[in-house]
Amino acid sequence: MKSHTKYLTFNTRKRRDYVNITEEVAQAAEESGVREGLALVSAMHITASVYINDAEDGLIADIDKWLEDLAPARPDYLHHHTGEDNADAHLKNLLLHHQVLVPITRGKLDLGAWQQIYYAEFDGQRPKRVIVKIIGE
Amino acid sequence: MKSHTKYLTFNTRKRRDYVNITEEVAQAAEESGVREGLALVSAMHITASVYINDAEDGLIADIDKWLEDLAPARPDYLHHHTGEDNADAHLKNLLLHHQVLVPITRGKLDLGAWQQIYYAEFDGQRPKRVIVKIIGE
Amino acid sequence: MKSHTKYLTFNTRKRRDYVNITEEVAQAAEESGVREGLALVSAMHITASVYINDAEDGLIADIDKWLEDLAPARPDYLHHHTGEDNADAHLKNLLLHHQVLVPITRGKLDLGAWQQIYYAEFDGQRPKRVIVKIIGE
Repeated sequence: MKSHTKYLTFNTRKRRDYVNITEEVAQAAEESGVREGLALVSAMHITASVYINDAEDGLIADIDKWLEDLAPARPDYLHHHTGEDNADAHLKNLLLHHQVLVPITRGKLDLGAWQQIYYAEFDGQRPKRVIVKIIGE
Repeated sequence: MKSHTKYLTFNTRKRRDYVNITEEVAQAAEESGVREGLALVSAMHITASVYINDAEDGLIADIDKWLEDLAPARPDYLHHHTGEDNADAHLKNLLLHHQVLVPITRGKLDLGAWQQIYYAEFDGQRPKRVIVKIIGE
Repeated sequence: MKSHTKYLTFNTRKRRDYVNITEEVAQAAEESGVREGLALVSAMHITASVYINDAEDGLIADIDKWLEDLAPARPDYLHHHTGEDNADAHLKNLLLHHQVLVPITRGKLDLGAWQQIYYAEFDGQRPKRVIVKIIGE
């Protein structure tokens, strides 16, 4: 069995942002030397997500608006009694989930034609990490 | 380490549909020869999900209505400026998530008594693929 | 390759409850002897979730209220024609997802500073199981 661990860091200019990280994950898979296995791509923060969907700007704007509809930024969360102001970012993280698992087949990410891996930032403007953990043979 | 990869194809008659794929995944696990490991079951499309829940028709209808309430089919998504009409299918995919990871113990899927694996189609009536990727020993 | 399987049982006093299980998972990882690998933590029931987020009581109350807003307990679900009364617990399970995958690096759970693993019970007051399945080297 082989394993490979890589940490990616993102520091988005906007508080909420969506970054296509498919190439970084593909590169980590190549570095791993794994031919058959699994690549976990997982945010190490509780106010950011990793998801797979389309690299289409209109859809990304739709996703952002939808997340705000279902998990709105509002002052009246109990979490804000701690001095924080980002409860909505936690809820958005839970809605999109913080991780995906990508199969590796014959040394490549085994994704469908339209599947792109995204880092979704909900409380950015500071360095935040994503772990890529690959195991296989 | 052993690995096994299998692609399942679904072509649902209805645009939205829910297909119990537990037996197909169990068969892939058996073919793999893996006694202890993990089976990733992951949609290769961005308008379909894989989830685990109950094989009960009333609940499946409840899930379908709930998805439509939270991620409704509507004309006014920005994604539709590309000519597409399926933005809601992308949002439903994100809500249910596109993959599950099933443990394999003593050569069998290690599921709870009521856990069934479902393929959820949100933009069907064409062939679409699910990858089953198994690793273990 | 090494593997290790452990079943945790929870019997919450309240119907809905949130239990921090990070220490139990860390202990299972230690028992496994795995230095580099993955730990799947997965509810074996379809009315409970496993998620990663903050160990902050205010936020947990916010999450509970948010789940009730998006997947409310109501009498009029079709699932209830079977005699059940817990359709909302199924929907809450789908919203939060029933599993997380935790990387193990140098023999420890490789979590971010604020990431805590929670068992979320939506239909408790009876014994329910979570599987921890670890594979690695």
